[in-house]
Amino acid sequence: MQLLQERIRKEGKVLPGNIIKIDGFMNHRVDVRLMRDIAKEFGRLFDVKDVTLVLTAEASGIALATICAEEFGVPMVFAKKAKSDNIEGGLYQSNIYSYTYKRKVTLLCSQDWIRPSDKVLIIDDFLANGEALRGLVEIVEQSGATLVGMGVAVEKGFQDGGRKLRERGINLKSLAIIESADENGIVFREDEE
Amino acid sequence: MQLLQERIRKEGKVLPGNIIKIDGFMNHRVDVRLMRDIAKEFGRLFDVKDVTLVLTAEASGIALATICAEEFGVPMVFAKKAKSDNIEGGLYQSNIYSYTYKRKVTLLCSQDWIRPSDKVLIIDDFLANGEALRGLVEIVEQSGATLVGMGVAVEKGFQDGGRKLRERGINLKSLAIIESADENGIVFREDEE
Repeated sequence: MQLLQERIRKEGKVLPGNIIKIDGFMNHRVDVRLMRDIAKEFGRLFDVKDVTLVLTAEASGIALATICAEEFGVPMVFAKKAKSDNIEGGLYQSNIYSYTYKRKVTLLCSQDWIRPSDKVLIIDDFLANGEALRGLVEIVEQSGATLVGMGVAVEKGFQDGGRKLRERGINLKSLAIIESADENGIVFREDEE
Repeated sequence: MQLLQERIRKEGKVLPGNIIKIDGFMNHRVDVRLMRDIAKEFGRLFDVKDVTLVLTAEASGIALATICAEEFGVPMVFAKKAKSDNIEGGLYQSNIYSYTYKRKVTLLCSQDWIRPSDKVLIIDDFLANGEALRGLVEIVEQSGATLVGMGVAVEKGFQDGGRKLRERGINLKSLAIIESADENGIVFREDEE
């Protein structure tokens, strides 16, 4: 997606350790107009008329998933990252490793909000090691719902999360795949669409 | 707001300890159409043409704040709840107590994303003890920006967060103020608008 790649090239910062910081428009300050453009692009790439639910993980996926859900006319569910008092029993759950926070995290989703009849599109802002997305896939599997696909805004193509998800046969579409990012700049994988 | 009160009455569950669970449409599964209706209501209650930024705290405020930001044509910033590797120096921060998680939490916001010239509308889904909202006000104060107001979807009127914020002179508007919630049902404060 040209618009997103240009934005990453213009405003993204590469930090030591291959960290790509796009928090000025994606995951701290959020450019909601860009989120709408991304949602429309997912609308072209996926058969969204069949989707009944958009699923993401807190926290940084929520803004994009919200706009996608509105674009497709369905509710949005976000998996939570810790047990709070406000979630009673009956939970789907998946243990993942958060590279951001360097600790194990349990993704939780109430069984009330994903039904076996649901057709789920998973949405997230970022894919690197793919742990959060693997956890979301496990939650969809536990629910018995159908996974229609997975839409990601930005994928770090030089880490293996995307490869592993595609090898499982998941219909993963990333709108900007970063092949390399260093002091010489950011290089994107050629658009396969 | 009639529509929101009806929804709470119809789908809200009262749990022991005065916990009001509205996670089927507000803060786990999110009815994005309702979020749009709430955003339009805030658009009537606040002078949104002056607002340059919508601010919330992760995680459950993000969905509503995203729709509000799009409705008002401004970016959305969410304060983060723990230091991750992706946030470099230059942070506004405020220590709050999370009653949900029963521990201290630090709200963080990059100084890059709130400027002294900003006119900020704080948005959140829920107000009970008001700790998260107090933290967001402190962040706005640290930034030197102007706080235009604070829009909350659901306030627990029988806890003192709302009173404390109003006593500080903050222009707080809550669309549904719950006066009491027990086995006999949910009672709302009369609409003052």
